[in-house]
Amino acid sequence: MLIIMRHDAEPAEIERVCAVIEEMGYQSRPMPGRQRTTVGLVGNDGRVDGSRLAALPGVAEILHVTKPYKQVSREWRAEATVVELPGGLRIGGEEVVVMAGPCSVESEEQIIAAARAVRAAGATILRAGAFKPRSSPYSFQGLGRRGLDLLVKARNETGLLIVTEAMDAEGLELVADAADIIQLGARNMQNYSLLKQAGRQKKPVLLKRGLSATIQELLLSAEYILAEGNPNVILCERGVRGFDSTTRNLFDLSAIPVVKGLSHLPIIADPSHGTGHRDMVTPMARAAVAAGADGLLIEVHPQPDRALSDGAQSLYPDQFARLMIEARQIAEAIGRRIALPVEAVA
Amino acid sequence: MLIIMRHDAEPAEIERVCAVIEEMGYQSRPMPGRQRTTVGLVGNDGRVDGSRLAALPGVAEILHVTKPYKQVSREWRAEATVVELPGGLRIGGEEVVVMAGPCSVESEEQIIAAARAVRAAGATILRAGAFKPRSSPYSFQGLGRRGLDLLVKARNETGLLIVTEAMDAEGLELVADAADIIQLGARNMQNYSLLKQAGRQKKPVLLKRGLSATIQELLLSAEYILAEGNPNVILCERGVRGFDSTTRNLFDLSAIPVVKGLSHLPIIADPSHGTGHRDMVTPMARAAVAAGADGLLIEVHPQPDRALSDGAQSLYPDQFARLMIEARQIAEAIGRRIALPVEAVA
Amino acid sequence: MLIIMRHDAEPAEIERVCAVIEEMGYQSRPMPGRQRTTVGLVGNDGRVDGSRLAALPGVAEILHVTKPYKQVSREWRAEATVVELPGGLRIGGEEVVVMAGPCSVESEEQIIAAARAVRAAGATILRAGAFKPRSSPYSFQGLGRRGLDLLVKARNETGLLIVTEAMDAEGLELVADAADIIQLGARNMQNYSLLKQAGRQKKPVLLKRGLSATIQELLLSAEYILAEGNPNVILCERGVRGFDSTTRNLFDLSAIPVVKGLSHLPIIADPSHGTGHRDMVTPMARAAVAAGADGLLIEVHPQPDRALSDGAQSLYPDQFARLMIEARQIAEAIGRRIALPVEAVA
Amino acid sequence: MLIIMRHDAEPAEIERVCAVIEEMGYQSRPMPGRQRTTVGLVGNDGRVDGSRLAALPGVAEILHVTKPYKQVSREWRAEATVVELPGGLRIGGEEVVVMAGPCSVESEEQIIAAARAVRAAGATILRAGAFKPRSSPYSFQGLGRRGLDLLVKARNETGLLIVTEAMDAEGLELVADAADIIQLGARNMQNYSLLKQAGRQKKPVLLKRGLSATIQELLLSAEYILAEGNPNVILCERGVRGFDSTTRNLFDLSAIPVVKGLSHLPIIADPSHGTGHRDMVTPMARAAVAAGADGLLIEVHPQPDRALSDGAQSLYPDQFARLMIEARQIAEAIGRRIALPVEAVA
Repeated sequence: MLIIMRHDAEPAEIERVCAVIEEMGYQSRPMPGRQRTTVGLVGNDGRVDGSRLAALPGVAEILHVTKPYKQVSREWRAEATVVELPGGLRIGGEEVVVMAGPCSVESEEQIIAAARAVRAAGATILRAGAFKPRSSPYSFQGLGRRGLDLLVKARNETGLLIVTEAMDAEGLELVADAADIIQLGARNMQNYSLLKQAGRQKKPVLLKRGLSATIQELLLSAEYILAEGNPNVILCERGVRGFDSTTRNLFDLSAIPVVKGLSHLPIIADPSHGTGHRDMVTPMARAAVAAGADGLLIEVHPQPDRALSDGAQSLYPDQFARLMIEARQIAEAIGRRIALPVEAVA
Repeated sequence: MLIIMRHDAEPAEIERVCAVIEEMGYQSRPMPGRQRTTVGLVGNDGRVDGSRLAALPGVAEILHVTKPYKQVSREWRAEATVVELPGGLRIGGEEVVVMAGPCSVESEEQIIAAARAVRAAGATILRAGAFKPRSSPYSFQGLGRRGLDLLVKARNETGLLIVTEAMDAEGLELVADAADIIQLGARNMQNYSLLKQAGRQKKPVLLKRGLSATIQELLLSAEYILAEGNPNVILCERGVRGFDSTTRNLFDLSAIPVVKGLSHLPIIADPSHGTGHRDMVTPMARAAVAAGADGLLIEVHPQPDRALSDGAQSLYPDQFARLMIEARQIAEAIGRRIALPVEAVA
Repeated sequence: MLIIMRHDAEPAEIERVCAVIEEMGYQSRPMPGRQRTTVGLVGNDGRVDGSRLAALPGVAEILHVTKPYKQVSREWRAEATVVELPGGLRIGGEEVVVMAGPCSVESEEQIIAAARAVRAAGATILRAGAFKPRSSPYSFQGLGRRGLDLLVKARNETGLLIVTEAMDAEGLELVADAADIIQLGARNMQNYSLLKQAGRQKKPVLLKRGLSATIQELLLSAEYILAEGNPNVILCERGVRGFDSTTRNLFDLSAIPVVKGLSHLPIIADPSHGTGHRDMVTPMARAAVAAGADGLLIEVHPQPDRALSDGAQSLYPDQFARLMIEARQIAEAIGRRIALPVEAVA
Repeated sequence: MLIIMRHDAEPAEIERVCAVIEEMGYQSRPMPGRQRTTVGLVGNDGRVDGSRLAALPGVAEILHVTKPYKQVSREWRAEATVVELPGGLRIGGEEVVVMAGPCSVESEEQIIAAARAVRAAGATILRAGAFKPRSSPYSFQGLGRRGLDLLVKARNETGLLIVTEAMDAEGLELVADAADIIQLGARNMQNYSLLKQAGRQKKPVLLKRGLSATIQELLLSAEYILAEGNPNVILCERGVRGFDSTTRNLFDLSAIPVVKGLSHLPIIADPSHGTGHRDMVTPMARAAVAAGADGLLIEVHPQPDRALSDGAQSLYPDQFARLMIEARQIAEAIGRRIALPVEAVA
């Protein structure tokens, strides 16, 4: 940590900064420059709260040299985390894993039809919400427990693994029992109680980036889960808040290489929420694979114009099948491949 | 709701849109223009989910004419909500209510000193966190239950009312028992499980705007609380995510008149989190009163340079006292006044 | 255009809105709904300024049904614009055109070395700035006219076409004489005097999206150029202002499919400015091709650590060569190909 | 400037960084920490371009300790700049100066009526555009030279000073001849050719903050003007691009105290463009005075519902008169006063 002093800081002010640093248990290294003095705080392990120093007279600014996260950092663990799933599916290795399905579980007929369609096109994990976070209290809120039962049924019928969202403590226990991956949604990315609970159980966690979360905040939220003992975290870019309402969100694909540089955790992309428009899902899904994403999360509905939620951004099954063909070629162009269905692997 | 058709939409596509509208239980009103046809959906009560229509062929765009919130809307209830607190304090009326205190409860000595200082300057409600949402798992997380006990002690000693944050289901029960107002923080603004729980108990709720929440999303989150039966919601502007790191957040003071126009709920301002710098708190607190805020939420610490959190944005007690003098004059300039301590009222 | 009335609007207020519409020369179509009346303005050609109507009593909101741009709109001209360049190079057709080179022309040696390197790897157009817009008056401002001379020399030596930026009226004339494509930079996207001048000359224009420009604003700026008579506009996504300083800008790749849907103009991508970090340029350049960009604009410097500007985001020549190989394969995966050097075409 | 090395940087990489720093003419000061080495670059005067260093292997990040601007900085000149205008009016001192008038000059009758109305309420400077930057080429573009003539007529009739916008080199000469203050608009904040020209003439310049400009970028643009010899720059906050379309822009009032802390230049506020809605102009104008603005720029139109531009955000004359009364009291509450008309001063 570096404490930048004002150019007109008094010597006594600089001494006080040094004294407070020593009092906090670290060493201080004043470095006088031509215009101003900078004081280095050394001997820390990256977890210093600088607000006390920022409040001292004569201090212009605090600069953080060390990132506040540790266990998720690639600087401290160079080797990529590979999340192992039942049947031998792996996320974070050479393969690109495709998760697809409708926004919500709506009925047995719908979820089975969706599962079969995405399975036929080559997806290996089924996505669909049983508990739905909706901005309006008057929108469809999901089928709840019954939705989870239907997902289990779909897994039994198709062999697809299941990822689905948990919104609170009670739901997280239910989802952890039923699903193969627990999704924590964008709106809960900084719900620290939920993050801690997810860190204390065994299932892998898919953590979606919050709507205005910086990459550092995303990594700190993942750090909460690792700090509680669960190393199996998959990050997900799903669009951030932008200023242009032409798209539902601003799909920040650069997050893929940024996260790859800073962390060893796998990261996938959700172009359906990232764009909000069916016509943009295919090009942006292709782009995500080209950018190096470890997986895709895509909304596919057997009948988008009858969907109870997110109809406008759901692909038709045949659009999804075409996308899978292009995605395979793009993965190969960069030396990867799309993961095959579990049975084929086993 | 209006469905804008593409200029080259086929008559059959327009008919299908009308048919789906009728199937949904509403009436359709096609309106051919010189360039394109617009179809009105009428007979709805503002709660239509348009995604099914957006997915139909030939549709260019969906425009919402009616806002998706209802109970919080000023269009439907013109009279301002006034939240009544113990001892006769009222938020949302003519008076401007000042809530002040440290970021966190740190010790008995600290919270009592802070309470006395803000009481002496004219605050009527004590703010301080017992449960702290921190972006890093390694930052100080608050004293928890013991923090609540110390807040109760401070109330007994000073007569100040208490507002403090709840972060999860268990914490909300504890805070509802101890505090006069339950704060739901910015990171939990769309934690719908927590909003519903807050709506099912009796204490007033201070709902902070999320870091990238639109005003409509803030009002929809308040709608969740009202929809469960609790009408006593106080909104709070505390800064949104901006692109300029000179300030911690971008303090969106325009939210005050915007909310006043759209909703009957009271709204207060938090210039401490809104700016993140002590030097900016006083001018922006004055500005908030001038803009019409129903209250202020301000961080004051007896010794900011020893604070365990948010030291850099906490006022010194004497700065707060000067601010209160200016705030009183500004309130008078616009025909309001700063609320007096409860005893004086009784 | 639709005028949404407040739910409590008086009949006289609705009548006045209709009267003003008629006075403006259009027809009004009031449409009473269950909650409020909407008044349609019909008979317009998309160029109505609604501010006068927005100011009338009883009006809640104005909704624009017709986009304010026309000549650039795909709704009005479905066929893609293909910009024809000397030697048969075409932008906007099946081929993906790669423009590469250093940020600035620094010396004859540097620009010739850069031109040869990007030519060898397969680029067809040389990019480099002679006039440099820099946020600080103390940064290197470019070589000016001498820079243009050196670019012409590089074209003569390598056969590459030239794209370079003009910043003002005088510079635009010089650039139009020397270059094959005139670049208008992000900071000048709404410099309307410059846009009009660019529209009155004959060379194709590369118009970069402003740092916080919506897609509609970008298209309106292009409309300025077309309205003056120059149909050869190439749009360019180069990153928008974001809230996360991890990257220099937020590279909005979704702009590619959005623009393809709304306009017939070609659009290319600049991943160098879009990200600001060398390590991210390659993945995001690949992603841009996968998303459907009609070209790439990439900074390549023979010696990035000696660059006078933008060294940190410039590729080394061998990195660029590897990128070209991957880009070719990705283009093929989506049925396109990278444009070959002009001579090979001829 | 500080160069943060990666924690696994090789000694040779650190040595190379030091060598490059020395080669650039500065001194290097390596500071090994527990986790990584930081290299200080000292002996510079704040104008170092760090991109060359950022490109070296082993470098994690560059941190700027010294701000890139100088002449506008309060650190280097503590005393406030006070801009002196004809008749003794001063901007940047104790008085708060009110500039008001219509968005555009539309006709002699309109501008004289507007001038008389704002004069009667207490404004001292007349604002109105002769050259109008409009996002659409089909919107009203202003009366041009004739507009300037009408402004001069209004000054002769009322004694008000004049501020009006220049959009290009030719217009700037005309405006400099006719007006008392030259306005450079938000879209031209980084039009460096225009900034330099404004710096080479004598009239004071009102520089509006760009739609997504950081405070540092705003100050750097002002630095361009000062660097050319014109010290009389007045900054203006007019709203930045936000994510919520409820308001036209996001009015960033915090910019007032931020600029006051960083620079000695005066700063005024434009709540009309800052909000875009008439109902919000009055509360936000009051807030701007309370926040410490040195002036207000407000749109007032004799007949807003007949305005050719910005009708929806223009105050009626009687609303403006009421605002002036409140503004006077708020100015007094913070120890300032609203500037009186020039004649009264003389």
